[in-house]
Amino acid sequence: MELQEYFNEIVRNVDMEIQNRLKGDVKGLYEASYHLFTAGGKRLRPLVVVSVANVLGGDINRAYLAATAVEILHNFTLIHDDIMDQDTIRRGVPTVHVKWGVPMAILAGDLLHAKAFEVLSDALKGLENDRIFLGFSEFAKSTEIIAEGQTMDMEFENRNDVTEVEYIKMIEKKTAQLFSCSAFLGALISKANDYFLDKAKILGLKMGTAFQIVDDILGLTAEEKDLGKPVYSDIRESKKTILLIRALNEASESEKKTIMEGLGSKDPEKIRKAAEIVKNLSLDYAYSLAEKLAEEANRIIEEWDSNTSIGGKALKYLVELTVKRRK
Amino acid sequence: MELQEYFNEIVRNVDMEIQNRLKGDVKGLYEASYHLFTAGGKRLRPLVVVSVANVLGGDINRAYLAATAVEILHNFTLIHDDIMDQDTIRRGVPTVHVKWGVPMAILAGDLLHAKAFEVLSDALKGLENDRIFLGFSEFAKSTEIIAEGQTMDMEFENRNDVTEVEYIKMIEKKTAQLFSCSAFLGALISKANDYFLDKAKILGLKMGTAFQIVDDILGLTAEEKDLGKPVYSDIRESKKTILLIRALNEASESEKKTIMEGLGSKDPEKIRKAAEIVKNLSLDYAYSLAEKLAEEANRIIEEWDSNTSIGGKALKYLVELTVKRRK
Repeated sequence: MELQEYFNEIVRNVDMEIQNRLKGDVKGLYEASYHLFTAGGKRLRPLVVVSVANVLGGDINRAYLAATAVEILHNFTLIHDDIMDQDTIRRGVPTVHVKWGVPMAILAGDLLHAKAFEVLSDALKGLENDRIFLGFSEFAKSTEIIAEGQTMDMEFENRNDVTEVEYIKMIEKKTAQLFSCSAFLGALISKANDYFLDKAKILGLKMGTAFQIVDDILGLTAEEKDLGKPVYSDIRESKKTILLIRALNEASESEKKTIMEGLGSKDPEKIRKAAEIVKNLSLDYAYSLAEKLAEEANRIIEEWDSNTSIGGKALKYLVELTVKRRK
Repeated sequence: MELQEYFNEIVRNVDMEIQNRLKGDVKGLYEASYHLFTAGGKRLRPLVVVSVANVLGGDINRAYLAATAVEILHNFTLIHDDIMDQDTIRRGVPTVHVKWGVPMAILAGDLLHAKAFEVLSDALKGLENDRIFLGFSEFAKSTEIIAEGQTMDMEFENRNDVTEVEYIKMIEKKTAQLFSCSAFLGALISKANDYFLDKAKILGLKMGTAFQIVDDILGLTAEEKDLGKPVYSDIRESKKTILLIRALNEASESEKKTIMEGLGSKDPEKIRKAAEIVKNLSLDYAYSLAEKLAEEANRIIEEWDSNTSIGGKALKYLVELTVKRRK
């Protein structure tokens, strides 16, 4: 089977499950909850869940359910993040709070959050008792960790002394944790042993960290039409990305001044000037970090699979995509 | 054991469990999550969980955990509701979004939501497989139903033709569902059979519906210091309570005009005049509704327990309190 066909099949099944799960009497609420799913998205996390399950011999239908739970959880966090960051565009469409107002967007996120647990419950049915609790606990803790990461991200906006170590800690929580949980669930429903479960978590963590670093890079380098949202918003919102942290460390006094003038500014020219300097001083470094993480992820995949299963090929492709993507 | 002592013991145990569960590195987030717990609250839902478990012979420590899960879930909904309703005071203290801002309040609610599932998971450990899934599914569905109820409540603010049937449906979702889930969990962890589980749900539903009706009454009749929040806020926010619906149905044309002038108004005098008419036309009716529901709840308690166990006495007292309370 071709890789693209393999991915399409997963996305089709997960999207169908999502659609079936998001039906209810209170129409406005379900429309708001379903909005971002219809606007595209890469479904990366579901692809990770199902591909890990493929490599480790898990049941495919159970994998689709776990993948659906993760994607629903992810979209809940997107809806709430957009409110907090006051972002107006995502995936090229108005964000939920722009279209339905903040109260409905809060409720839509809450609905998806609960729905994710409901779907997870179905994914875990039939597993052994201690594995069921392990699944629930990892899923709940992931959400808590994501909230911690998002809090750190916001707190960092008001600080100019954020270190690279703090940044990595923050994106591990905010972004990588859900990739980690995705790979873990793929392994859990495959009845993998504890050693494999731990390796799956690490694989997801490396992949997710690389993904966020590249996300931060693309926020400075991609075209608005590819990004699906305005460029340079990280500079405008004074987000402490690895690029900014590295650039501030490397900058001369005058460069530093230009960067600081752009941070949190409303002036497009000041923002652009700051962005240019940040790019010059940090791009190579940020890419090399992401590539190192990708290599580490690849080593785990190779330990599991010597390039024979479609799931193994899929995971290697996803790791490559994480670093090489342009949007 | 005296009833008050029995209740104190439950509250002490649940509060200790809540405190132990809400510790974490990201300080601001955990402080915001813990804020409302420190400001009092009646812990009614935990008392229901533990008392039902007492009547039906459930394990007390498991009951404390289930009660903690419910109380944490309840406080998550309060934090998010206060953002949506733009309420500034609850339990006599500033609401979370007033004290920490909307973004942190959204995250604090999300953290508590996930934490509730984590604690529930511990409460269900050791039960039979199908009962574990029943517990998770009821808990997740309850949150979805609460979100539906809150959506209806908001949608009703823009309508003047809400019927009594619609109101009851809305408060069953918004408020009574979590009482229903509380009684259900008390029965579930007691390994009750399906018949008892259903009865527990109905008991909670009746009690919760009565509770919300009386809540709406107190919003018009209580003193601000007892209420812990401003009086007449339902009139100011144009909330379609049973009192308003009944009053609009019974009012003369001139009374109707005065009521409509008060709804959503910022003028304290107009609000007060509207409130007086609403009270005159609806208080007896609303109380008689609440009392009827309380009687129905009592019949279920008497079916379970002929006034011998402390849990049975506690439940009867709680039903009475629901209707007779003054704050």
